[in-house]
Amino acid sequence: MGSQLRGRCFTLKSLKDHVQTWMERVRSGDARALARAISTVENRAPESANLLKALFPHSGQARILGLTGPPGAGKSTLVDQLARHYRRAGQTLGIIAVDPTSPYTGGAILGDRIRMLDHHADPGIYIRSMATRGSLGGLARSTADVATVLDASGRNLILIETVGVGQDEVDIVRLADITMVILVPGMGDDVQTLKAGIMEIADIFVINKSDREGAERVEREIRAMQSLATRHDNWTPPIVKTVASEGKGVEDLAAAIADYEGYLQKENLVLQRNIQNWRERLLEMLRDAMLERARTQLGDGQVEQYAAEVAQHKRDPYTLVEEIVRKAGSDVYD
Amino acid sequence: MGSQLRGRCFTLKSLKDHVQTWMERVRSGDARALARAISTVENRAPESANLLKALFPHSGQARILGLTGPPGAGKSTLVDQLARHYRRAGQTLGIIAVDPTSPYTGGAILGDRIRMLDHHADPGIYIRSMATRGSLGGLARSTADVATVLDASGRNLILIETVGVGQDEVDIVRLADITMVILVPGMGDDVQTLKAGIMEIADIFVINKSDREGAERVEREIRAMQSLATRHDNWTPPIVKTVASEGKGVEDLAAAIADYEGYLQKENLVLQRNIQNWRERLLEMLRDAMLERARTQLGDGQVEQYAAEVAQHKRDPYTLVEEIVRKAGSDVYD
Repeated sequence: MGSQLRGRCFTLKSLKDHVQTWMERVRSGDARALARAISTVENRAPESANLLKALFPHSGQARILGLTGPPGAGKSTLVDQLARHYRRAGQTLGIIAVDPTSPYTGGAILGDRIRMLDHHADPGIYIRSMATRGSLGGLARSTADVATVLDASGRNLILIETVGVGQDEVDIVRLADITMVILVPGMGDDVQTLKAGIMEIADIFVINKSDREGAERVEREIRAMQSLATRHDNWTPPIVKTVASEGKGVEDLAAAIADYEGYLQKENLVLQRNIQNWRERLLEMLRDAMLERARTQLGDGQVEQYAAEVAQHKRDPYTLVEEIVRKAGSDVYD
Repeated sequence: MGSQLRGRCFTLKSLKDHVQTWMERVRSGDARALARAISTVENRAPESANLLKALFPHSGQARILGLTGPPGAGKSTLVDQLARHYRRAGQTLGIIAVDPTSPYTGGAILGDRIRMLDHHADPGIYIRSMATRGSLGGLARSTADVATVLDASGRNLILIETVGVGQDEVDIVRLADITMVILVPGMGDDVQTLKAGIMEIADIFVINKSDREGAERVEREIRAMQSLATRHDNWTPPIVKTVASEGKGVEDLAAAIADYEGYLQKENLVLQRNIQNWRERLLEMLRDAMLERARTQLGDGQVEQYAAEVAQHKRDPYTLVEEIVRKAGSDVYD
């Protein structure tokens, strides 16, 4: 659908109708319309904003689960097992696999294809992989937008899986309703480093491959870190042990997820968490939009010329940026 | 100096003189003035912009080396060894240790303190550790600004060391003149994932702990990946094997660094690389500045209210952000 727009002539009215029809197809479960909507949003194609505006009122129904952890923790296998569990319970799923370690090439694709073969006969599971598209693209934001599309399409549950424990991953999983951090035994001395940023975002800890030596030690370390940290919501993240490759502990994990959901509802924390998420997301969207505007006003050639002047120390970048911002403000818009 | 500003009254003229004096002290090698300048820049304190404007014309002399790799690769030890090597050659150094895996707490501090003890008697080495300060702060930008301060202070060489292989780390080390990626034998199946984003940024590969089993295999894997990738500058990144804990291979690494520097100069690539870096940095600075302006115009209370409305699906965020940007443009600035 998206690409068919090119070369066609639309009035504003017919463009609106086009997006409306598209949105309705996505909502009715049309797999092709959904796939195209996701690509459009991920690539920030021209129709992206209109489509998101049309879909947004229909989102907010799905539960969003986020999973992150260091490479090799077995996240993909765990996500697969969780997906099977929820499918058996009659739920429909969207899975977004994000690989921020892959800035220039589409790295997550292979693992994804393999899994696709497993689930491809089941229309109740939709899998999409995403990789970084350069530093200014905002992978967290693209992930959030894709989740909005899947949510509006009527999926009951969205699983967002990302590799790593850096700021990117924190940003990506933060938009989930529930965040799980997956650790494994034998991570070595760096388990301390890994955990520093992660204690705050984990609602549930999973020790996967827990049949390996060292599972007790990882558990003790998590407990020790927990005794130092305090959470705004007073929830103590449980530690669930799994062996995802054998399906062990998956029911326990699903039970822990249900527990936390119950807690959030009982304490009326759902809205509070959503507001917190949206505060961050709005600022990020605003930042992107403002940059886009400044970039358009400047033009690529001008940016290139400024970069050359600064690189040759003919101009200082700090004064330059101030001037551009001041100028952007005084221009008449519209 | 920074904190002494608080509560004091400045005219514009005296503020300019104050920054000028401060800048001159930094340039003369005053360690306290340098430490305060770095803190001011890192925290984006009010004097930060004026100080950077004053220091920028004096920067651009130092060579900047960036080192990154997965946790446990032995980067800190390698940086120490490189520092020793260059100190013996009579060079002065600034070391910036960045830990993006630590979003809420200052995680890099401990290792840093230990190393400080080693070097604290040597004024020729200045070490600073940095951790992420929330997602909108821009750690890459802070690192770049701190490097500018160290550069302007007259250090010959700046080593930027960061843990991890995600987008954060790519952004941080990208500002270096030369980027080294440190790998180790026995990284398991995930070496593929780790390398996906890294092939493009590595000017030199280091296999540290190369006395361990599996060093040959890592080397073969790097070679295999190299045969698929093409670089703009036609440089084939060499692979240097080290055992940093014993100082082995450090001279080879220094020779590889000198080789690449020679290549860049011979091919006139230095300016081109700087322009490329500044294009990205300018856009990032512009993005931050525009967001800051939008945030100031809105006010925190307004952002909170918008977030609440969106979280309750009373408003769609896409239309909202468009409206804010349009409004920002029509306001008179100055």
